[in-house]
Amino acid sequence: MAIRFESLDSDIMGRCGKLAVGKKIIKTPALLPVINPHLQLITPAEMKMMGIEAIITNAYIFSQSMQYREQALAEGLHRVLDFDGVIMTDSGSFQLSVYGDVAISNLETLSFQRDIQSDIWVPLDIPTSPSADRATAERELAITMERLREAQETFGADAPIAAPVQGGIYPDLRERAGRHVGEMGFSFCPIGAVVPLMEGYRYRELVQVVMAAKTALPQSACVHLFGAGHPAMFALATAMGCDLFDSAAYALYAKEGRYLTAHGSYKVDELTDLPCSCSVCRSHTAAELRTSGDRERQLALHNLYVTLAEIARIRQAIIDGTLWELVDERCRSHPQLLSGYRELLHHAETLEKHDRVSKRRFFYRGSESCQRTEVVRYQKNLSRLRLGRDVLIAFDGNMREGFSEMLLFKPPFGPYPKELKETFPIGQSEIPDWDEAMVRQGYKGIRALIQSHPGSRFVVACNARWIQIAREELPGVEVIT
Amino acid sequence: MAIRFESLDSDIMGRCGKLAVGKKIIKTPALLPVINPHLQLITPAEMKMMGIEAIITNAYIFSQSMQYREQALAEGLHRVLDFDGVIMTDSGSFQLSVYGDVAISNLETLSFQRDIQSDIWVPLDIPTSPSADRATAERELAITMERLREAQETFGADAPIAAPVQGGIYPDLRERAGRHVGEMGFSFCPIGAVVPLMEGYRYRELVQVVMAAKTALPQSACVHLFGAGHPAMFALATAMGCDLFDSAAYALYAKEGRYLTAHGSYKVDELTDLPCSCSVCRSHTAAELRTSGDRERQLALHNLYVTLAEIARIRQAIIDGTLWELVDERCRSHPQLLSGYRELLHHAETLEKHDRVSKRRFFYRGSESCQRTEVVRYQKNLSRLRLGRDVLIAFDGNMREGFSEMLLFKPPFGPYPKELKETFPIGQSEIPDWDEAMVRQGYKGIRALIQSHPGSRFVVACNARWIQIAREELPGVEVIT
Repeated sequence: MAIRFESLDSDIMGRCGKLAVGKKIIKTPALLPVINPHLQLITPAEMKMMGIEAIITNAYIFSQSMQYREQALAEGLHRVLDFDGVIMTDSGSFQLSVYGDVAISNLETLSFQRDIQSDIWVPLDIPTSPSADRATAERELAITMERLREAQETFGADAPIAAPVQGGIYPDLRERAGRHVGEMGFSFCPIGAVVPLMEGYRYRELVQVVMAAKTALPQSACVHLFGAGHPAMFALATAMGCDLFDSAAYALYAKEGRYLTAHGSYKVDELTDLPCSCSVCRSHTAAELRTSGDRERQLALHNLYVTLAEIARIRQAIIDGTLWELVDERCRSHPQLLSGYRELLHHAETLEKHDRVSKRRFFYRGSESCQRTEVVRYQKNLSRLRLGRDVLIAFDGNMREGFSEMLLFKPPFGPYPKELKETFPIGQSEIPDWDEAMVRQGYKGIRALIQSHPGSRFVVACNARWIQIAREELPGVEVIT
Repeated sequence: MAIRFESLDSDIMGRCGKLAVGKKIIKTPALLPVINPHLQLITPAEMKMMGIEAIITNAYIFSQSMQYREQALAEGLHRVLDFDGVIMTDSGSFQLSVYGDVAISNLETLSFQRDIQSDIWVPLDIPTSPSADRATAERELAITMERLREAQETFGADAPIAAPVQGGIYPDLRERAGRHVGEMGFSFCPIGAVVPLMEGYRYRELVQVVMAAKTALPQSACVHLFGAGHPAMFALATAMGCDLFDSAAYALYAKEGRYLTAHGSYKVDELTDLPCSCSVCRSHTAAELRTSGDRERQLALHNLYVTLAEIARIRQAIIDGTLWELVDERCRSHPQLLSGYRELLHHAETLEKHDRVSKRRFFYRGSESCQRTEVVRYQKNLSRLRLGRDVLIAFDGNMREGFSEMLLFKPPFGPYPKELKETFPIGQSEIPDWDEAMVRQGYKGIRALIQSHPGSRFVVACNARWIQIAREELPGVEVIT
């Protein structure tokens, strides 16, 4: 295979990995900045200096360009763009989604991408609009799959071909598509046609389709979230197992005078201060940036710096096992991202199966933290505890008479034996002053323990503040103070 | 008065203002980096290039230094440090808190600060330890107040003297101290001896003492949070009305190989990626920074860039009226900061009195958002609605027969008449898919409306999903679907 992916570290379903494309290797998660050959605000050579290992450009633009077509065919893309890293090319599907038609066939664009020496080729897949009905989504998916088959037959299984996963907003179609491209042996699988969902702040649906595609794809596939996008949503996408992002946002936003940050965007004309540590923002006042003759490029540089910083933060969070905390931080920056985050938490049972065993820490960040995979797993594992006949669960850690053993209690996890006091997550979790949500979740842990140990008798000794909720959450259980 | 403060924009109790010190004017909120003359990792001249308008140094170090004492007396501080902005000097109180004794008197340090031409002088106040009992805190506060009186009598009401507010962890003492220094006419009032609270992550107590001091101080006083600190807590402190921070953290952390961010700190030896957009982080890999011969200075630069970016972000948030959202973002980065944030929300009634009328937006960020000042105010103002005899509150906006009028419903605010649909906060609030916390809070709004309109009959028409909670929150109220 021309494209191979290896996961080195992981957290939730996110991975830090190595993507090998021919002889080139890049680190993931990665951002592939979009290069428009006609408008290079920041050149690929400058990007290389910033540590960027891969870029993406549009083969269709090259194929239609008087200026670039012959040069690219003669010299190859890397020479034309002056970039020796990985260059991925899009096929024209984007133009297809915008204009409804495109003057190139599937095999033509793939041959052209091969001929200009692109490292990763994209077939002419059909990006199904979120407004498409199910029949349309199914029909368009069939065309995409047919074109993938055609590509594979024509160029062989070793060609560096990306296999986009389509299916519109229908999770079962996304799942079918994901399973299908995996079975065909593709190892580089973009999830396509999600830009309209992101542009419409439809993050709940985005999570549904990405989770559907992703859980059907093989773990060994490198997953590119096509057209994503704004750095505020990279952490969320990474948590679902997306490895690559390609973004024109740094340049498009700059053109419109918009200033990106990982917590949202500003209009530069409305900024009185520059809330960023980058060299552009630390060497200009807001007024200077606003009125600079070089404003568009300076804004593009700023936008790219913050986007790269976010990728670095995500990588660090995966290595530390703190990705949930980053997802929580980013997703609260917009209410619709919060809806997306809460949707992701609804998939915690699925995520838990992939999540790592131990992490640096668990920081409680609000009631949403009760639904994290670490809590799900902890409460699931409670069934494995070996318990005697008479079990006391004592908040205060004081044994009472008449019990064979005592468990302690830490919300939002629940009951724990002393031996687990120093292990993850009990020992490495930090919580604020107890709140109702975490205590209720901890009581769910007690319920799970009781249900999985029908041979034991349980008594809960909690303090007065939490006794009413105990009575609500633990019907039929003896609760004392 | 030598020191005058003017608030230009405000949000919650935070202000963007102008601090005039003699003929110099600085923007607030501001960070005063701490300069140790013996160890200038970053020089004051370089700081000026970064836009820093004020610094703080320690007069006690100068007074005890063979190298600097005479030079400072002869040439003045500004010449010695090569900085023509505002220079504030600390008195030796910090050394007092660390070593328990100091070889200088109150009048000696003030005279010395005057003689070296410091712009803002600090008396030898007593920084009471948080572990001090009430009697000790009271006795030490009396000494501080006596020294302030002595300072004022000796140097006159026009001297640029800072009046630290002490009182240990006792809110009533902090309040008394705040009222007292205000009555004495001081216009520059640091809140002192809070470093041990911050070092111990005791943010709940920090909020209690700062709120106590701050609500007793006159609005016209510029409030400096002495020794703060880590940029992760600046937003919280600003929301309480702190205007200035002084921080040695950028340099101290660098010395210890620690890498600051506004969401927490890392050990640079544990970083595999540099999660920041600053010029240091975008021009080094983590390995390069770790092994750099210039590591301490590069880290100090990074630490200062992110701290300045946070000040800029806070200023922008105040102007936009989005400071609650920033406080929420930052305070979730550590569970103890979350406890501090929740404590601040307990003061929402007080904060509401100071908060501005209209804001750019209200973004719901989780159940904590239900306690924000905008919700408190909205529900308080419901008593002013003029209503007829038979009022329908309809979630679906459909009028039923038998009612004189209809109100709509938007959580977490509550009922609203159509005329308020476009006004703040109803029109400018964005919420995710409804959650239980926000709906319960909205029902509290309905309760407040009903209680303030005893002459009207109310019927709530909600949808099935929320009817059970309506029955819990609205006992005795007719609820239909």
